[in-house]
Amino acid sequence: MAMIKKLVIVGGVAGGASAAARARRLSEAAEIVILERGPYVSFANCGLPYHIGGEIEKRDALLLHTPDSLRARFNIDVRTQHEATAIDRAAKTVTVRNLQTGQEYIEQYDALILSPGAAPIRPPLPGIDDPRVLTLRNIPDMDRILAALDSGARRVSVVGAGFIGLEMVEALRHRGLEVTLIERDPQILTPLDAEMTGPLLETLHKQQVKLHIGDGLAAIVPQPQLQVVLASGVKVDTDLVVLSIGVRPENKLAQDAGLTLGVGGSIAVNAQQQTSDPAIYAVGDAVQVQHVVNDRPVVLPLAGPANRQGRIAADVIFGQQASYRGSQGTAICKLFEMTAGATGLNEKALKAAGMPYRKIYIHSNDHAGYYPGAKQISLKLLFAEDTGRVLGAQAVGESGVDKRLDVLATAIQARMTIDDLAEMELSYAPPYGSAKDPVNLAGMAAQNLVAGLSAFIESEELEAAVSAGAILIDLRQPGELKQGQIPGARNLPLPQLRTLAAELPKDVPLVVYCQVGLRGYIGQRYLQQQGWSVRNLNGGFRTWKMLQSTER
Amino acid sequence: MAMIKKLVIVGGVAGGASAAARARRLSEAAEIVILERGPYVSFANCGLPYHIGGEIEKRDALLLHTPDSLRARFNIDVRTQHEATAIDRAAKTVTVRNLQTGQEYIEQYDALILSPGAAPIRPPLPGIDDPRVLTLRNIPDMDRILAALDSGARRVSVVGAGFIGLEMVEALRHRGLEVTLIERDPQILTPLDAEMTGPLLETLHKQQVKLHIGDGLAAIVPQPQLQVVLASGVKVDTDLVVLSIGVRPENKLAQDAGLTLGVGGSIAVNAQQQTSDPAIYAVGDAVQVQHVVNDRPVVLPLAGPANRQGRIAADVIFGQQASYRGSQGTAICKLFEMTAGATGLNEKALKAAGMPYRKIYIHSNDHAGYYPGAKQISLKLLFAEDTGRVLGAQAVGESGVDKRLDVLATAIQARMTIDDLAEMELSYAPPYGSAKDPVNLAGMAAQNLVAGLSAFIESEELEAAVSAGAILIDLRQPGELKQGQIPGARNLPLPQLRTLAAELPKDVPLVVYCQVGLRGYIGQRYLQQQGWSVRNLNGGFRTWKMLQSTER
Repeated sequence: MAMIKKLVIVGGVAGGASAAARARRLSEAAEIVILERGPYVSFANCGLPYHIGGEIEKRDALLLHTPDSLRARFNIDVRTQHEATAIDRAAKTVTVRNLQTGQEYIEQYDALILSPGAAPIRPPLPGIDDPRVLTLRNIPDMDRILAALDSGARRVSVVGAGFIGLEMVEALRHRGLEVTLIERDPQILTPLDAEMTGPLLETLHKQQVKLHIGDGLAAIVPQPQLQVVLASGVKVDTDLVVLSIGVRPENKLAQDAGLTLGVGGSIAVNAQQQTSDPAIYAVGDAVQVQHVVNDRPVVLPLAGPANRQGRIAADVIFGQQASYRGSQGTAICKLFEMTAGATGLNEKALKAAGMPYRKIYIHSNDHAGYYPGAKQISLKLLFAEDTGRVLGAQAVGESGVDKRLDVLATAIQARMTIDDLAEMELSYAPPYGSAKDPVNLAGMAAQNLVAGLSAFIESEELEAAVSAGAILIDLRQPGELKQGQIPGARNLPLPQLRTLAAELPKDVPLVVYCQVGLRGYIGQRYLQQQGWSVRNLNGGFRTWKMLQSTER
Repeated sequence: MAMIKKLVIVGGVAGGASAAARARRLSEAAEIVILERGPYVSFANCGLPYHIGGEIEKRDALLLHTPDSLRARFNIDVRTQHEATAIDRAAKTVTVRNLQTGQEYIEQYDALILSPGAAPIRPPLPGIDDPRVLTLRNIPDMDRILAALDSGARRVSVVGAGFIGLEMVEALRHRGLEVTLIERDPQILTPLDAEMTGPLLETLHKQQVKLHIGDGLAAIVPQPQLQVVLASGVKVDTDLVVLSIGVRPENKLAQDAGLTLGVGGSIAVNAQQQTSDPAIYAVGDAVQVQHVVNDRPVVLPLAGPANRQGRIAADVIFGQQASYRGSQGTAICKLFEMTAGATGLNEKALKAAGMPYRKIYIHSNDHAGYYPGAKQISLKLLFAEDTGRVLGAQAVGESGVDKRLDVLATAIQARMTIDDLAEMELSYAPPYGSAKDPVNLAGMAAQNLVAGLSAFIESEELEAAVSAGAILIDLRQPGELKQGQIPGARNLPLPQLRTLAAELPKDVPLVVYCQVGLRGYIGQRYLQQQGWSVRNLNGGFRTWKMLQSTER
């Protein structure tokens, strides 16, 4: 490997800053230059909504490093407001424009790392360039939103219900503003499957957020009063629009330089983060990654991978063994008292990819129910029909969601199976978990399904089954029925099932359910062994209710 | 496999109750009998200290099932206060004594599951049988302690600083009592290594718990005033003694029946939970398990394994494929605001087993430092010198400890390496973690150690190194020094290191440290590349301080 005397890094936030710091630890001899178009380096972009909402009080808390601190600590030459405008691959040079003076100059490199990030999408709709239509990517964006709010904006329309959109909704409600959330897709938070977003929709309703789901932005009418016009024709009066409908890789520099691009306009890289030019590396939100679960090329803009990729690029450049193993889409979001997240592939993606899968829903307390403060976690587990390999997981609840997602993310990374989940030895004391953790329970329920002990019916199949003549039996205690009932159900509490089942006709298929699925399973095992044809509602009344919440 | 018409289970708590419920789901035809010596089945034994402390207000909350509820739900014949006194293996019968009537009878079985649990150790010391010397294993034990407290006990001595001992200390302090904690070993909570208990000792001091560590119980003097006498001769006046110095397997029934025993008097079983008699199974705290990390036979009385073993025994008996993969000692404890736990082998065990290992300390926030409420987690990672395999982990802190332990427990189960930890894609948003999670950081630090990038010195080696002439450099900012300094250190803040290092003599070995180790690593890399021989203090000032806390 040629000696690297000079490393130039384009982009000084997550991936670029990580690469620079790692590079210096590996080589005191190299000259390291960061070219950052914006006025700040190494800022906490994931913290922006929380400063808008007021949880993070001090703006300075978001500035993790300054050019001076990076120079003092790492002897890195940080040039903010310097934009790389072109790459001459043959000459190994970058053309740089000083955005403050307008001057251009040429910078030579031995190795070049591109960490340009991804830009918020601004669709070419009428009125979209109105100055009251803002996005949130960096500190100046945040400052603009705060200035608009300080100037008296009271009604804000958030367009796009992804992670940033939902975080913005919470931030704006914290400020006491009137918030409308607009999402073109028929569901919010598309990394999750629709039914798992039910509890989030309930939270949004409770927080008095006005929802327009399944109705996209069509136009912005700027006068006489700022108005958002939706595809359905609905008009929403508003003072400010925050666009959060997704991001696209900043690929212009790479594309102009003739580097190979990947899916969605991303920059294609190998496992060493090298682009099609071996002297040019790329990291972060702009690059293509392999999905860990099915090896397909995807773009997954996430902070963790960006930081790790930056470190790997520096390692490779300075002679360390390193390779990126792919991304798995682990992501999480706080929405008021709720937490929701996902890792691996969701059911929509598995269907689209034609991968055979089974699914299990578990609703289980985050810690022992007899210890105060227990909160229910709703967990969806997706696994391979043949091997039992864990393919994906989603969870939503008030507490302990992040822990179960991280355990399942680790399981996916290690290619573990449902048997492994059933056997996990997780930390248990009453304040932290249960002797059978929700992850164990999901594994055990999946084992029962695979072993043929448990026949499931899904919430979405229920209506058809009842129409076809199945008897629907609610196994809950009478006191639980006030939480709602599935239409057409007959209440037969589990403790009485053994004495009262004889009254049920033998030649009619049965569907049983309880609150979360466990008593349903017990009842199903009993009835099945007595000769009935019986299916248990996967995830019980709670899953059915979550699905209902998304359909109202 | 012979048809199992009748299953008898000895012991109706965790493992026994799990086995019974699983057995019924697998077979409606079988007769299932639970023989439980005590007055309760399926109670929450892990919840007992929390009812004593008052967090769990209602005693009934601890009774997860009653004989009636198990009969109604599962058609299980539950006989409390019935003790199995002998097994006739040839005849496949158990002798049962009805403890209320004194009557004995014979019960036939096709399969027998022993779930006898483990009994608190009561060492044969003078005065130990005083009625004011109590243990805590079950509901009647709890009732006795509560009765003693209700009768006016104000000063309580807890003997044994394991998980139950520490939970009892917290419970008793919650009640406002004067608590003395006595531990024969030179450290508390021996599943952790000594230095990791430093923050717990600080908490105990802060909570005004009187500590006698490294000083065992020698005698109880009952008159005129209950007094605990320690090995050192120290006498502690007390109203009540709670013994929590460990448990021993309840093996009498198995031993009398001639079943093979294992280490520490445990009942030996195979992976199908079968004892040396294939018709007799054993599960729970009384059985021997293989340690997942080094395959050695051990006894690890834990609730999670007990429950899973019960399920496995029922599976095997009723024809399902199942086997127990071993235990790894994952355990956790709440102590006031602190949480501490461990998984895998600790350093003491690795030394004792002669397994080559390396170690890393990390002190890192549970979530992004710029988001409110971040708390530091102290994490110790132990890994194999050659393969990088994770062998053990310990963590202590106020928040997020259980999550990291569970991720690391999963990593140990999956035989993951330090490289896998560095690459983990865990859920990140500012309220939940950091782009580089503490687990990632531990993996990365371990990689640096293995790659030779980072040379460490341990806290316990520091004094000798300085005596031998090494210069000790504190790289923290002057404002941090008020937290304490290591004697003999010279303060040279990292931002000034590049300009001031030239003043350091070149021929003297250097030792650098910062608060947690990261800036130490950066400084070490710089100095090393400039030609100095330099080592970084593993885990920084914080680890050194933790060790100090255990030595005062």
